[in-house]
Amino acid sequence: MRLELCDVSPRDGLQSLELVLPPGTRAELAGRLAASGLQRVEVASFVRDELVPAMAGAEEVVAALPVGGATTWAGLVLNERGYDRLAATSLPETHATFGVTETFQQRNGGSSVADGLARALAVTGRAHADGRRVSVTLSCAFGCPYEGPVDPGVVQALAARAVAHGVDEVVLADTIGVAAPSEVRGLVERCVRDLGAATGVHLHDTRGTAVACVLTALEAGATLVDGSVGGVGGCPFAPGAQGNVATEDVVYVLEREGIATGVDLDALIGTARWLAEVLARPMPGRVQRAGRWP
Amino acid sequence: MRLELCDVSPRDGLQSLELVLPPGTRAELAGRLAASGLQRVEVASFVRDELVPAMAGAEEVVAALPVGGATTWAGLVLNERGYDRLAATSLPETHATFGVTETFQQRNGGSSVADGLARALAVTGRAHADGRRVSVTLSCAFGCPYEGPVDPGVVQALAARAVAHGVDEVVLADTIGVAAPSEVRGLVERCVRDLGAATGVHLHDTRGTAVACVLTALEAGATLVDGSVGGVGGCPFAPGAQGNVATEDVVYVLEREGIATGVDLDALIGTARWLAEVLARPMPGRVQRAGRWP
Repeated sequence: MRLELCDVSPRDGLQSLELVLPPGTRAELAGRLAASGLQRVEVASFVRDELVPAMAGAEEVVAALPVGGATTWAGLVLNERGYDRLAATSLPETHATFGVTETFQQRNGGSSVADGLARALAVTGRAHADGRRVSVTLSCAFGCPYEGPVDPGVVQALAARAVAHGVDEVVLADTIGVAAPSEVRGLVERCVRDLGAATGVHLHDTRGTAVACVLTALEAGATLVDGSVGGVGGCPFAPGAQGNVATEDVVYVLEREGIATGVDLDALIGTARWLAEVLARPMPGRVQRAGRWP
Repeated sequence: MRLELCDVSPRDGLQSLELVLPPGTRAELAGRLAASGLQRVEVASFVRDELVPAMAGAEEVVAALPVGGATTWAGLVLNERGYDRLAATSLPETHATFGVTETFQQRNGGSSVADGLARALAVTGRAHADGRRVSVTLSCAFGCPYEGPVDPGVVQALAARAVAHGVDEVVLADTIGVAAPSEVRGLVERCVRDLGAATGVHLHDTRGTAVACVLTALEAGATLVDGSVGGVGGCPFAPGAQGNVATEDVVYVLEREGIATGVDLDALIGTARWLAEVLARPMPGRVQRAGRWP
């Protein structure tokens, strides 16, 4: 199966910043990312504006996206109300998500884990009926800020439920950046080998392990890797620390390891530097600081 | 063979900073590092003060080191003049170094590669005669800022010369932070398997690959990993970018992977934060920002 890289900066990268970018700028960011060759971009989150002000105007973002390219635009929803909004747009792909621990899912999604899963599956049914592909992200798959370490068997069981329901892809999210490379390898193997699932990873570089985890994920058969250009966005659970792994750092190491990504690294670095100017803040991503090699 | 971690912050971490720390503070840094359980600390460089002002007073650093601990103190020399100075101190271990490309060695060491190797071997002979252990670092082993990619066969041949001369350890240095994990695995394997050498790696996290490279180095049999607490020190060849991998990031990932380091991670994080205060600048290391897990 072909490797896909998905940039989530317009959503996960920007959602926790104090500076709110207008929809047109977020669409421009998405367009620049697409122009660099990324296979997928998560462009918006359909949540209540008052809960996540930085994500307000999701429909305007979608309406301003360039049309006709090869990049798949995706939108994130937490429940059917969110999907109602997404369904009224042209987005071809739905990303649903829920947390795998009770405390996280209660605080982040306002429900139990079982209800979070049920919501994701309800969204899946509707999106499939509408002809949309669905990817479901399991948050805190490697650790929870409230409950600590997470049993991979629990994550596998939740992923199995989603796979049995027909989701097109499961994404294992290291929401707080605590995954160890061998843990990523193990959980991806469980999903790929035991469940036969198309499996992605969403990694945060909070403790410096994300690039190593990307490599073990791919060795274990992952077919999707998320990133956020420039590494934009912090970690809400570790103030001052980095959140998402920088997409260009992922592209760089993959290309250096001989894994073709289809992405123009120079263009991606250019987008990281453009975003740093737009946000008037330095980006933590390593490669956009240092430059490519050789 | 037992894994050794060596912190090089008092030398490589500080040598390119504009702020010059007095010898007593550098000795205090070394003492804090030793107290966290690190097996080795490179405390000073015996070079001409006018060439590297931040390293001035190497003898005073050594004289101010705490005595009696389990940590091995090491000093760096480039030639016999440097060794003359080291030999007058109590340091039990000598680190010698030369660059593996002509342009780098000319600019950094003022000689050809052959002469750089000869100098390191001359130092080795004298240090051994004095009962000192000798480790030889091959700079730019994975890439040169002037000449680009480096042939691993050339590096292996130079390492073989050093091994044949009886050096106790060879260290493969990614001086500019361009090593890919599989390249590190390959070159360490050549030294460990083909040469039978005790082999270390000195990695820079300039492009985000250092932690992944540490893991492949250990898989290939490396028995020494260098780091710099807090990731202090930039990359002279990429302004604004990180240089040495943060020692606490190395310790963190190894402990998370079940590899015992003997190092108290909390104490090491404390030293990184102390150094950030001393230098009045944020440190780039990830784990000292985010905190340990779980």
